[in-house]
Amino acid sequence: MQILVVPDSFKESLSAKEVANAIARGIHSVDSEISVKQFPFSDGGEGALDLLQNLFEGELVTTSTIDAMGRSIKAPYFRFADRKAAWVELSQASGLAQIEVDKRNPMLASTYGTGLQIRHALDHGAEEIYLGIGGSATNDGGTGILSALGGLFSDAEGEMLLPGGGFLTELDHIDVEAIPQFELKVACDVSNPLLGKQGATAVYGPQKGVTPEMEPQLEAGLTNFSKHIELLTQKSVAEVPGAGAAGGCAAGLHGLLGAELASGFELLAELSNLELEIKEADLVITAEGRIDGQSLEGKLPVGVAKLAKKHHKPIVVLAGSIGGNLDLLYALGINSIFSIQNGPCTLKESMDNTAELIESTAQRVFRLFQTARKS
Amino acid sequence: MQILVVPDSFKESLSAKEVANAIARGIHSVDSEISVKQFPFSDGGEGALDLLQNLFEGELVTTSTIDAMGRSIKAPYFRFADRKAAWVELSQASGLAQIEVDKRNPMLASTYGTGLQIRHALDHGAEEIYLGIGGSATNDGGTGILSALGGLFSDAEGEMLLPGGGFLTELDHIDVEAIPQFELKVACDVSNPLLGKQGATAVYGPQKGVTPEMEPQLEAGLTNFSKHIELLTQKSVAEVPGAGAAGGCAAGLHGLLGAELASGFELLAELSNLELEIKEADLVITAEGRIDGQSLEGKLPVGVAKLAKKHHKPIVVLAGSIGGNLDLLYALGINSIFSIQNGPCTLKESMDNTAELIESTAQRVFRLFQTARKS
Repeated sequence: MQILVVPDSFKESLSAKEVANAIARGIHSVDSEISVKQFPFSDGGEGALDLLQNLFEGELVTTSTIDAMGRSIKAPYFRFADRKAAWVELSQASGLAQIEVDKRNPMLASTYGTGLQIRHALDHGAEEIYLGIGGSATNDGGTGILSALGGLFSDAEGEMLLPGGGFLTELDHIDVEAIPQFELKVACDVSNPLLGKQGATAVYGPQKGVTPEMEPQLEAGLTNFSKHIELLTQKSVAEVPGAGAAGGCAAGLHGLLGAELASGFELLAELSNLELEIKEADLVITAEGRIDGQSLEGKLPVGVAKLAKKHHKPIVVLAGSIGGNLDLLYALGINSIFSIQNGPCTLKESMDNTAELIESTAQRVFRLFQTARKS
Repeated sequence: MQILVVPDSFKESLSAKEVANAIARGIHSVDSEISVKQFPFSDGGEGALDLLQNLFEGELVTTSTIDAMGRSIKAPYFRFADRKAAWVELSQASGLAQIEVDKRNPMLASTYGTGLQIRHALDHGAEEIYLGIGGSATNDGGTGILSALGGLFSDAEGEMLLPGGGFLTELDHIDVEAIPQFELKVACDVSNPLLGKQGATAVYGPQKGVTPEMEPQLEAGLTNFSKHIELLTQKSVAEVPGAGAAGGCAAGLHGLLGAELASGFELLAELSNLELEIKEADLVITAEGRIDGQSLEGKLPVGVAKLAKKHHKPIVVLAGSIGGNLDLLYALGINSIFSIQNGPCTLKESMDNTAELIESTAQRVFRLFQTARKS
């Protein structure tokens, strides 16, 4: 029997690797001969760089760049050893977390620093770029990245626009001829469109510092940007699901560079041949700190379940806590779900003993699985 | 597929019947066609009368009798409809719970009232008596029961002894000739011997009001009693496991009437044909408020597991909380164990939602079982 273990991390408690180890220990406490393949995973959101180092041969490359407000910083990206590819995280250079609250200004904030990282990767041999977006400080439609790669954004007088979403209302001409050819895949875990009430500015603006005064200007800027993309390419990006991710970054990269938009999980799964691993497994175990039927979008167990269902493989989720609407999870292919708790306990008690609880639960789940198979 | 559900009650939360219902609901939420046989059970301790009414055709018969201190009371026993048998609970007439703390006196307390109940059952056609012992207020070696049935206990002058363990030091002659023939099976869930440090008086005396001053007298009384049983029957009861149950009641009934001593679970299992039900099941689910590897004696899941193991049937335990040393439980035949908790919670939260938690856990356990069988 071959068991594939594909857990997420348990936030503030255990890394995905530690979770995978605990599950493997639980299974091996029942039968040390069972083949357990550990695949610590992630939903591809922030923090994917750590994960990449667990899953792939490669190295973190740290380069000089600038943050969203234009200040010099150093930021890492991941270069794969066995393919001409790099994984860049938008949040490393252009993230919100590193901008002090009183310095945040989405009118001026730019993704240019992330563009510099991508250019570095391309200059050093990468032909494919995986870009994880999420946690951005910006609302610039990705014009910063495009500028750093050689794109030109000018106004009606032919003057180059200043960086930041606040100036996109002035945009009159786009020129991306100088941007080199490369394969770009964008990992985005939201499905918001670019504009409107569910769009980039309205939904994600406030957390980046968009005030009610700024909002019309930024929305008008992205509207104008999208109009010029359509003029140039004859394709509309405004309604593409996910186009609103990271301040419209997904819209710009999809519209002007033809970037593929996919979930972080899908891209990581593709890179790691997860589907092949699932095909070869007799049982798949995934894990997540909390699971319920309400918040499915981008959740690792859901992604793994879809692949497991495709290949008719049993899949079980271990979770710190289980919420309601489980039928929605079952419908996606999850066969069963178990909480790791042994009895009533506080959150702190549970978090202090997460590894032991996961190990014991994996042991008991595997015992039942084995018993049922033999019965 | 046929599933047998044999749960205990969850103390202060749900009756065994309610637990069984919740488990059945959980299974039927997955597949309403599955045959689920509900067998709400008990370890045969106090409270078995309720259970008997769930498991068997019959009636509660309430008669006038006396309590352990000789006061008039009414107490029920269970008469089976389909066999000439009755189940009498020692604690109903001779229990400790109904004696006020300041009135407890194990020197004088007698099981006579329980004997009256047994006599009533015999007079009304019973040929088999099941006697559940536990929770007694007495230390009389069962001489009260035996007296009520026609036994004679006299001193060296031929005078009848007064009721209570305090007078057994005077015992010089036993006559049980007048006691009618009947089948007696005693349900006792402890394995203490009659005498000594692990004996009836030393271990269970204090909770009945045995003071350090009374103890030597009561111990000497049971010692003398056991000597006279041996004189009369040529068999020693002093070292029989369980002889110390209920103030030596088990010793007297085993020694003088040949009563079979068995666990409450074993007797209930025999009466209910549980073993046959297990043989016909594809999966057995039992449940208990708390389970661990330390406190196995007399626990329902352990009894059920032994029968399931004998017939190579998968058996799973659902528990409110799971303690340590699970390997001991696995060794007894339990295949796996699941806590009903969905996540960190207080004991009160768990007890307020026990039925829903059990239902959801049964659903998820059954889903995994079914998935594994098909895989």
